[in-house]
Amino acid sequence: MTPEEFRAAGHQIVDWIADYRATVTSRPVMARTEPGDIRKQLPAHPPEQPEAFADILGDLDRIIVPGLSHWQHPQFFGYFPCNGTLASVLGDYVSTGLGVLGLAWQSSPALTELEEVVTDWMREMLGLSGAWSGVIQDTASTTTLIALICARERTTAYGSNRGGLQAESQPLIVYTSAHSHSSVDKAALLAGFGRENIRVVAHDASYAMRPDALAEAIAADLRGGAKPCAIVATSGSTASTALDPIGAIASVAARHGLWLHVDAAMAGSAMLLPECRWMWNGVEGADSLVINPHKWLGAAFDCTLHFVRDPQHLVRVMSTNPSFLQTAADGRVKNLRDWGIPLGRRFRALKLWFLIREQGIVGLQTRLRRDLDNARWLAGTVAAAAGWRVLAPVPLQTLCLRHEPAGLEGDALDRHTQDWVARVNRSGAAYLTTAVLDGRWMVRVSIGAEQTERSHVESLWQTMRMEAEQ
Amino acid sequence: MTPEEFRAAGHQIVDWIADYRATVTSRPVMARTEPGDIRKQLPAHPPEQPEAFADILGDLDRIIVPGLSHWQHPQFFGYFPCNGTLASVLGDYVSTGLGVLGLAWQSSPALTELEEVVTDWMREMLGLSGAWSGVIQDTASTTTLIALICARERTTAYGSNRGGLQAESQPLIVYTSAHSHSSVDKAALLAGFGRENIRVVAHDASYAMRPDALAEAIAADLRGGAKPCAIVATSGSTASTALDPIGAIASVAARHGLWLHVDAAMAGSAMLLPECRWMWNGVEGADSLVINPHKWLGAAFDCTLHFVRDPQHLVRVMSTNPSFLQTAADGRVKNLRDWGIPLGRRFRALKLWFLIREQGIVGLQTRLRRDLDNARWLAGTVAAAAGWRVLAPVPLQTLCLRHEPAGLEGDALDRHTQDWVARVNRSGAAYLTTAVLDGRWMVRVSIGAEQTERSHVESLWQTMRMEAEQ
Repeated sequence: MTPEEFRAAGHQIVDWIADYRATVTSRPVMARTEPGDIRKQLPAHPPEQPEAFADILGDLDRIIVPGLSHWQHPQFFGYFPCNGTLASVLGDYVSTGLGVLGLAWQSSPALTELEEVVTDWMREMLGLSGAWSGVIQDTASTTTLIALICARERTTAYGSNRGGLQAESQPLIVYTSAHSHSSVDKAALLAGFGRENIRVVAHDASYAMRPDALAEAIAADLRGGAKPCAIVATSGSTASTALDPIGAIASVAARHGLWLHVDAAMAGSAMLLPECRWMWNGVEGADSLVINPHKWLGAAFDCTLHFVRDPQHLVRVMSTNPSFLQTAADGRVKNLRDWGIPLGRRFRALKLWFLIREQGIVGLQTRLRRDLDNARWLAGTVAAAAGWRVLAPVPLQTLCLRHEPAGLEGDALDRHTQDWVARVNRSGAAYLTTAVLDGRWMVRVSIGAEQTERSHVESLWQTMRMEAEQ
Repeated sequence: MTPEEFRAAGHQIVDWIADYRATVTSRPVMARTEPGDIRKQLPAHPPEQPEAFADILGDLDRIIVPGLSHWQHPQFFGYFPCNGTLASVLGDYVSTGLGVLGLAWQSSPALTELEEVVTDWMREMLGLSGAWSGVIQDTASTTTLIALICARERTTAYGSNRGGLQAESQPLIVYTSAHSHSSVDKAALLAGFGRENIRVVAHDASYAMRPDALAEAIAADLRGGAKPCAIVATSGSTASTALDPIGAIASVAARHGLWLHVDAAMAGSAMLLPECRWMWNGVEGADSLVINPHKWLGAAFDCTLHFVRDPQHLVRVMSTNPSFLQTAADGRVKNLRDWGIPLGRRFRALKLWFLIREQGIVGLQTRLRRDLDNARWLAGTVAAAAGWRVLAPVPLQTLCLRHEPAGLEGDALDRHTQDWVARVNRSGAAYLTTAVLDGRWMVRVSIGAEQTERSHVESLWQTMRMEAEQ
């Protein structure tokens, strides 16, 4: 494809996406696709000869789009908002079109330096001190894995340069809560700690980790001859937006020299609002921190911010320096390959740069406040409705709720919950996902898709009532 | 930004990229930027108010582009070709514009099923058997890390579900060659093996791993009470395109029940050509395999193919199944989050789908053969020129060469090499990178940017002679 052919086809694609976004409300939010439906419409073998671009575009409409659940739909209330705001999308278009790669600073200096600038901008927007250094990773899962590896290496004084984790005489222990994200367990297992060395610290009635229980667990491990290594605290848990008390946890971490990683993947965006910053009070005491601008904030996926207090440590753990990557600029520049797992890196700073500039801080804040207001409205409405219950505090934009008709409990209540949510999803009018809280299925309403206005939340409430109370 | 604003701005961006690609030859290939040059042109603080889109576009031209090294330039011969072909770029534009996410099959069924289809297409195009299952990861570095974790878990019978790597009584050993990529060492360290448990197996005169030395190293470890775990073999090493003898290595692996991971990140693309497949003879004996379509093949970065023989093992190692991710379709579908580290996944299959369809197998093969032919021409030309030497076999598109003026050796020769390469790079006429081979710096000429024709290679040769022989 020549640049001129790209120009013509690219205009078609832009128009196609503009039309998609403008008409997404006319589609069922969740795909009505059975397993294998898409696959069986596609050729089993690759084409020998080139195909016309029009045929590819045609298949997008005919096969692909009907097989999508629409995350950018204003009635998408599942999982979390993953806003690909259109300004950010354009920033990513520039990145992909340029096709430059950040193996080393020298391999495209602007890629590295713009990443330094926008992560600094974000640090400032989040109210964090200048003691943090930021880098963009793909996801929070990867970042938490890196954090636990950094913890492991600090505790073992760079054991990976000797016999590795397998040479340690005392088991290293990771502390977290039952309400932390599944990626914490996954990271601990991938990093080699082992499931038996993950301590699930007790939580309080608001599902937040109890610092006293944490201190007790550490003391018990010390008595038992194990080596406490890391704590993963969550600011805004996935199921219920629980807020672990970061300050108190940081004190415990400091007392024992443990690594503290704070997972604010979802809720971190709210820290653009000064009125929300109490939620992670004490965060300056953490060693590492993860926030996903690709969630509520609106950066096109994937765009995760990883902040660390000690970049030299991160670099020492992650760096390799083969001859084929050395350049004359080394030592005077950041080589961001040494800040993460992949060697190759996309120019991801562009999508964040476009987003922040096109919106300005006030634009982003206004949207976040709109969503908080919508969540408060829905929480109040649900709480006031007979037979409905809000199950957890609503500090941000996620509600945990259940319809509890008189006489229904236990497994029958679980079946009712799953049934009415499935009806909502099948209706196409809204998309909801479920989770278990205190042993029972409940419904998470995650508000904050870019296009979601109050009217959409009101309409969701009507849909939920209709399907649950039928 | 509304869809209509996106339509207008998106056309501008597409035109901007079309112009960039059409005029890239007029730019110096390597950025002429000093450390900090870009950063100091950018505001230290984020904008409070929204900015005009035209200002962002203007800054791209004024600040960002002069700070890029141009990977899509036909005179880019550094590192490896990272072709973002324009059809593939458009596939990625669709992905980013749709903004859907593959947390679970249900969260966008077409994302998962198209990935199944295109990884199957690629498997067939590479001449691999139906015993392989494929998935798209971000990079080969990540994939090799996953492979070594899978190896660790197979050898320990899922030790991560018990006490982890730290509970193993015998040290687990990883075998590789001094010519394997730095990501192999990095993966072994991150996975907890420890540097002392990485065995660097001796290589032969063509820089390929020696199976007899591998067998001896394993035998020595067994005698010493260690537990051999994994072998990472390379099909086309980074520095010199060395080809480890996969078949013989697979026999050794099979004899001892070791995991064999094959890194064909760069050279894997060549396996689209039946005449190249002898290079990885025996690959069906491996357990895992990594190939980067985002290199020579032309898929927009990032797009790495990870093939495994035992997907159930991969899923068992990588999966977590929290309530908030469970859907009614589970058990009947693939949830690709359980095939890698990140939970969230972009719709990356689109860029590969667009590429394969727009080019057809014959289109891709024709371009690869053009590059092989250019590499053979340059190798012959360099070998025939007085004072020049080709240092390693040239099975594919990378040449290792040096200008060796009479009387220059040792460190003085190294200085000469670095000096003339720096002159080439500063001239802007071409971009080359260096590496160490047999203890001395040499020049890698990696041919295969999409726009690189014979005339560009001829011009490179003139530039090299001029700068080296001056």
